[in-house]
Amino acid sequence: MDERQAIERLRRIATHPAALGLQDDAALIDGLVVTHDSIAEGVHFFPFDPPSSVGWKLVAVNLSDLAGKGAEPVAALLSLALSGDDAWDEGIIDGVAAACESYGLPLVGGDTIAIQRGAPRVFGLTAIGRAGERTPLRSGAKAGDVLWLVGTLGDAAAGLAMLQDDVRSEGPLVDVFRRPVALLRPGQALAPHANAMMDVSDGLLLDALRMARASKLSVTIDVDALPLSSAFVGERGQDRVARLFAATGGDDYALLAALPPDVDPLGLSLPSGTTIARIGSLTANGPELGLTSGGEPIELPEQLGFEHFGQQRHGNPAPPMADRS
Amino acid sequence: MDERQAIERLRRIATHPAALGLQDDAALIDGLVVTHDSIAEGVHFFPFDPPSSVGWKLVAVNLSDLAGKGAEPVAALLSLALSGDDAWDEGIIDGVAAACESYGLPLVGGDTIAIQRGAPRVFGLTAIGRAGERTPLRSGAKAGDVLWLVGTLGDAAAGLAMLQDDVRSEGPLVDVFRRPVALLRPGQALAPHANAMMDVSDGLLLDALRMARASKLSVTIDVDALPLSSAFVGERGQDRVARLFAATGGDDYALLAALPPDVDPLGLSLPSGTTIARIGSLTANGPELGLTSGGEPIELPEQLGFEHFGQQRHGNPAPPMADRS
Repeated sequence: MDERQAIERLRRIATHPAALGLQDDAALIDGLVVTHDSIAEGVHFFPFDPPSSVGWKLVAVNLSDLAGKGAEPVAALLSLALSGDDAWDEGIIDGVAAACESYGLPLVGGDTIAIQRGAPRVFGLTAIGRAGERTPLRSGAKAGDVLWLVGTLGDAAAGLAMLQDDVRSEGPLVDVFRRPVALLRPGQALAPHANAMMDVSDGLLLDALRMARASKLSVTIDVDALPLSSAFVGERGQDRVARLFAATGGDDYALLAALPPDVDPLGLSLPSGTTIARIGSLTANGPELGLTSGGEPIELPEQLGFEHFGQQRHGNPAPPMADRS
Repeated sequence: MDERQAIERLRRIATHPAALGLQDDAALIDGLVVTHDSIAEGVHFFPFDPPSSVGWKLVAVNLSDLAGKGAEPVAALLSLALSGDDAWDEGIIDGVAAACESYGLPLVGGDTIAIQRGAPRVFGLTAIGRAGERTPLRSGAKAGDVLWLVGTLGDAAAGLAMLQDDVRSEGPLVDVFRRPVALLRPGQALAPHANAMMDVSDGLLLDALRMARASKLSVTIDVDALPLSSAFVGERGQDRVARLFAATGGDDYALLAALPPDVDPLGLSLPSGTTIARIGSLTANGPELGLTSGGEPIELPEQLGFEHFGQQRHGNPAPPMADRS
């Protein structure tokens, strides 16, 4: 049973409306948005990653799910596995504390367990947010909506590849891999206007396909329009190969929003300096997922993102990390 | 750094009022009671435990925390580690589903990760409940309160000891260890009247001491009054040794309530058949924790319960499981 099969099995149980069909990486309960993501050593982070960055990332990936719903952070519960290595265990607590402080997220509970020394570390966080006036789901996109992306793509995947080449790698791309930023304020600004919204965690193409499927629409993405950082372009260039790498790498924690064509996000109260790009559209007909470049259709890459560990290990051998949704 | 030290460190971060000083195994947010407990193979369950019972227990131990606050279950988020052993992975999902169905607890989200084959399994559950008209904390007991216990003590610890002797052991005590019952309705009936309430998960004496400390009071417990099941008495007897075993064994998921002396819990709307016993009292003066038998003070046992893995491994060697709070 792989992760997808397990989620199918869980979906049969999770029939309550608050579960949103397990489609949204978050549940809606009494005006609160609730999400839980775990991260495991060897799956989502390296044994040699600094523990404070692991703690930071645990908080940020959960807040990114709240950002995708336009929610405001209210509280977090931490599930902490103590490995017996004091410096490491203190490091991850410090990283969680730093991220909570930075995002104004009160840590209000959780639990602490001691694991066997040498066992892979696993950590979890439950993040609770207050929903805004509207909570866009994945399934709400309408034919004719324009697809916008907040943030840049590929930085974390490029940083991960650098670490796989050389564990001593550093620089801005490694920093993005280790210390992602949750786009809470952009999410809150877009949510009242978005028909659908989600964070991009498993690769843009895979996540866009998920939005299209949930909304029973087709999605077309212009790979020339994908926003790339200067650090990414410096490391990988910006040709089609680089762009497809960025569109499938995952761990981006960008935001993907389907906005009606008459909404100009540049007129919304986005924080200054926000990178936002018009990258495609949603339509009633056509292939589920189409790519264009120079106005012409191009072929889909073999792998759209990282759906689960098994697929990732046996598919594209490059990045060993997956299921960051 | 052991679990207690980690919690001390986390307490410095968890300063928001909703955290309740990390004293209550639950947080209070917008009228909701939120708790998260993880269980790990080799720490909280045996590799040979039936996976469906592990799933059941994961749900029940979290609901027991809601019961201790008198809350009504609203939703759960599951953190599921897939081990690659399909029958096992399906078994735990089935156990979670059975418990959720039995308690009317909607599963609304969570996440699924694949762990390395052979790595110890770790599972987490976040349970969300709706607070009643009053939510008793651990810290609210008043001098003069009577200490009541709902449920029986020692069954799970006796079942655990039987499994440690022989992994093929079965019967009612093993069943209680593997499939505890969360006392939700008794908790809801007592909460409006209790000055303090909590579930007993780490051993009665340790948990009663925690309530007394949080309330800045002394607690005295009459070991002759501790409620024992007939299965327990059949296995262990009911002499002082057996009673102290029951009072320190843990994994009971009984409820401990401090009620004003004028409240008679037998007059409250407890479900028929509820076992409730008057086991002690809280006072302003005296030793933090005192035991009596036949009206005379008796010595405290060396170990009051299971505070954390390290202590447990180096203290009383009997039960290998701990920190079930």
